[in-house]
Amino acid sequence: MTESTIEKVKGFRVAGVHAGLKPVGVLDFTLIVSDTPCAAAGVFTTNQVKAAPVLVDMAKLQKNPNGIRAVAVNTKCANACTGQQGIDNANEMARLVAEQLGCSEDDVLVMSTGVIGTQLPMDKIKRGVELSANALGDDWNSAAQGIMTTDTRPKLEQLEFYLADGQAVRITGIAKGAGMIAPNMATMLSVIVTDAVIDQQQMERIFRNANDVTFNSIAVDGDTSTNDTVLLLANGASGVVLDDQASLMQFQDSLTQLCKRLAQSVVRDGEGATKFIQITVKGTRTREDARQIANTIAISPLVKTAFYGGDANWGRILAAAGRAGVTFDQTRLSLSMSSLNEPDRAVQLIVNGEPTGYSEAEATAIIQEKEVAIELDCGDLQAIPMQNDVIVWTCDLSHDYVSINGHYRS
Amino acid sequence: MTESTIEKVKGFRVAGVHAGLKPVGVLDFTLIVSDTPCAAAGVFTTNQVKAAPVLVDMAKLQKNPNGIRAVAVNTKCANACTGQQGIDNANEMARLVAEQLGCSEDDVLVMSTGVIGTQLPMDKIKRGVELSANALGDDWNSAAQGIMTTDTRPKLEQLEFYLADGQAVRITGIAKGAGMIAPNMATMLSVIVTDAVIDQQQMERIFRNANDVTFNSIAVDGDTSTNDTVLLLANGASGVVLDDQASLMQFQDSLTQLCKRLAQSVVRDGEGATKFIQITVKGTRTREDARQIANTIAISPLVKTAFYGGDANWGRILAAAGRAGVTFDQTRLSLSMSSLNEPDRAVQLIVNGEPTGYSEAEATAIIQEKEVAIELDCGDLQAIPMQNDVIVWTCDLSHDYVSINGHYRS
Repeated sequence: MTESTIEKVKGFRVAGVHAGLKPVGVLDFTLIVSDTPCAAAGVFTTNQVKAAPVLVDMAKLQKNPNGIRAVAVNTKCANACTGQQGIDNANEMARLVAEQLGCSEDDVLVMSTGVIGTQLPMDKIKRGVELSANALGDDWNSAAQGIMTTDTRPKLEQLEFYLADGQAVRITGIAKGAGMIAPNMATMLSVIVTDAVIDQQQMERIFRNANDVTFNSIAVDGDTSTNDTVLLLANGASGVVLDDQASLMQFQDSLTQLCKRLAQSVVRDGEGATKFIQITVKGTRTREDARQIANTIAISPLVKTAFYGGDANWGRILAAAGRAGVTFDQTRLSLSMSSLNEPDRAVQLIVNGEPTGYSEAEATAIIQEKEVAIELDCGDLQAIPMQNDVIVWTCDLSHDYVSINGHYRS
Repeated sequence: MTESTIEKVKGFRVAGVHAGLKPVGVLDFTLIVSDTPCAAAGVFTTNQVKAAPVLVDMAKLQKNPNGIRAVAVNTKCANACTGQQGIDNANEMARLVAEQLGCSEDDVLVMSTGVIGTQLPMDKIKRGVELSANALGDDWNSAAQGIMTTDTRPKLEQLEFYLADGQAVRITGIAKGAGMIAPNMATMLSVIVTDAVIDQQQMERIFRNANDVTFNSIAVDGDTSTNDTVLLLANGASGVVLDDQASLMQFQDSLTQLCKRLAQSVVRDGEGATKFIQITVKGTRTREDARQIANTIAISPLVKTAFYGGDANWGRILAAAGRAGVTFDQTRLSLSMSSLNEPDRAVQLIVNGEPTGYSEAEATAIIQEKEVAIELDCGDLQAIPMQNDVIVWTCDLSHDYVSINGHYRS
């Protein structure tokens, strides 16, 4: 989380409250409200098993992409695998918010996170809606806290950027991790808001591009949640219109930067994570091949435990690459490892499929750092430099991941 | 391991010895020798990164499928990612065995398991070959011990079956696990021998069928080894000829049973495993779909940690199924869980996508057993009953898995 002194995004009010879902005193419900209707875009889980709030939000965004007023988020219960009653409850949650705000329930999106297979406790949801509607203000930190699950810290990022003529646009985002983070599509809950004036379809396109290299490029454990949703709302309250190529590019750059910060903070706070790992794959025939290999390395339990143990057992990285479903020539593989924060401290482990005479002590020293970068070059002669390169971020697999997930529901 | 009083397979001699690869007193090298040339079949890793012994054996089996005399196995070093020197070393290992046995090096297969990326210590390999060649006998238990890596116990299975006319055929197999066990192709090291007389091509077909429902239906962590190899050798020493439909079917049944025992014992002894889990998936459009879903459930870290924690958090099973890349209707899913050893103790958790009013206490009691079965019915109306059903076996993900793999090389 970035402690920020920059100006708050205009025209949004938020609250994170204790609705009684979690133990006394813990924020467990968040409401985000725009004073005026927003253009909205969403990226949702690709899981075949979609939670009720995902199904409800997908339908609402289709119907009402320019009229969204609010997003309500509850924790502790995912409202997934809950049948028709789950759908009814998600709609009722939106209706309760609409009632408080005096808008249509079509204007309200809902998100849930927590245990799968139990129904929403509607009395507590009602309390959350009422308490948060009455507490709306500018406390984004509480809003970020109110959506946390196994996260150990809230994830809040804010930035502003200036157009050539000096006008300012602000973007603020909150997110929660921290398990069930897979490298396909949304991968978490996140709400990002901006006070820019922007066309909904342009925004949707830009949002997808930003997601591709940020939220879709992180992995904690390879499990895809039933509830993954990332929303972007633009209420136009700054009056700053983004409608030319240059300003839209600036918006895309800034949004990507903010999404990257949030996505990386999710990985840094991954369940039980002790290390942050950046994986670059290059030299493949296609960008999709590179992504497939990078993702397979990122979720390999053997790679992740080796990082946790601080053991430079790089053979596991190649073994993971080799089972990614991509054809390559093992005699052209090169692999290096470096300190993410001091890139000059690097060891070349293999070149053209053969181990180099690298120093084991040096390799061990690097892998024992908190932030490590690895780079695998598959050496395909048809690869297009840069264009096919993929970077993904992941964390290690520790004893704590097992502890956290062995008893998640208790 | 089955303590067996059945007669030993004829015409094979074996030895497991201490070659100095592991600490003093630990068996670390195994040699299996047939007195006469064998018909041989192999199933190898699908990993793009193949270890030198895999490449060497694949070539030899192609060239000499009816003349194999011996298999030598070393532990501690996988001879993978070792370039041309690795290939030369694997060939040299075979040559050393051939020298001892007075046969051609084309008649000798080699297997290696251990750390990836280091060269074979050829002095120790030479010692292993000499010691084992001088110790050949009928001690299959030592042979099973000599190939162990992180296994906590040797895996040795033996059986015999009788043809209608009373003639006996014997099959003996050894295997090692215990990590990098993925649900695609071979998934481990195993050598199986029989004294039957059988056509090499028939044997190869039967061996593939047996692998499909045994070694290819187990998962520990989803990582595919660079060294996976399962070999079947038939030396014909019993004089019993399997050449008609009935006797070949009997052989297939018996071989499948033996492979299943070995495969299940690998899962039961999976790295850090505390539970044995049987996953049945049915009601899918194709058998491939069912396998895809079963495998995804089997390697989901969240499912595996829930089992470890004894938490009946079944939503994770559905979430894993939903990300398997198979299209299905979530409102037709049904899921049940039972005690593998007392199938009558079962709870139906969901029917047609909605949670039943099952007893949480009962579900918890079942998941806390050592051996648990889950059954997911995807309810596809075009599913062919039985024919599309798939069963896979896996284990849980425990703190010990992380400990074992965090410091594998030390």
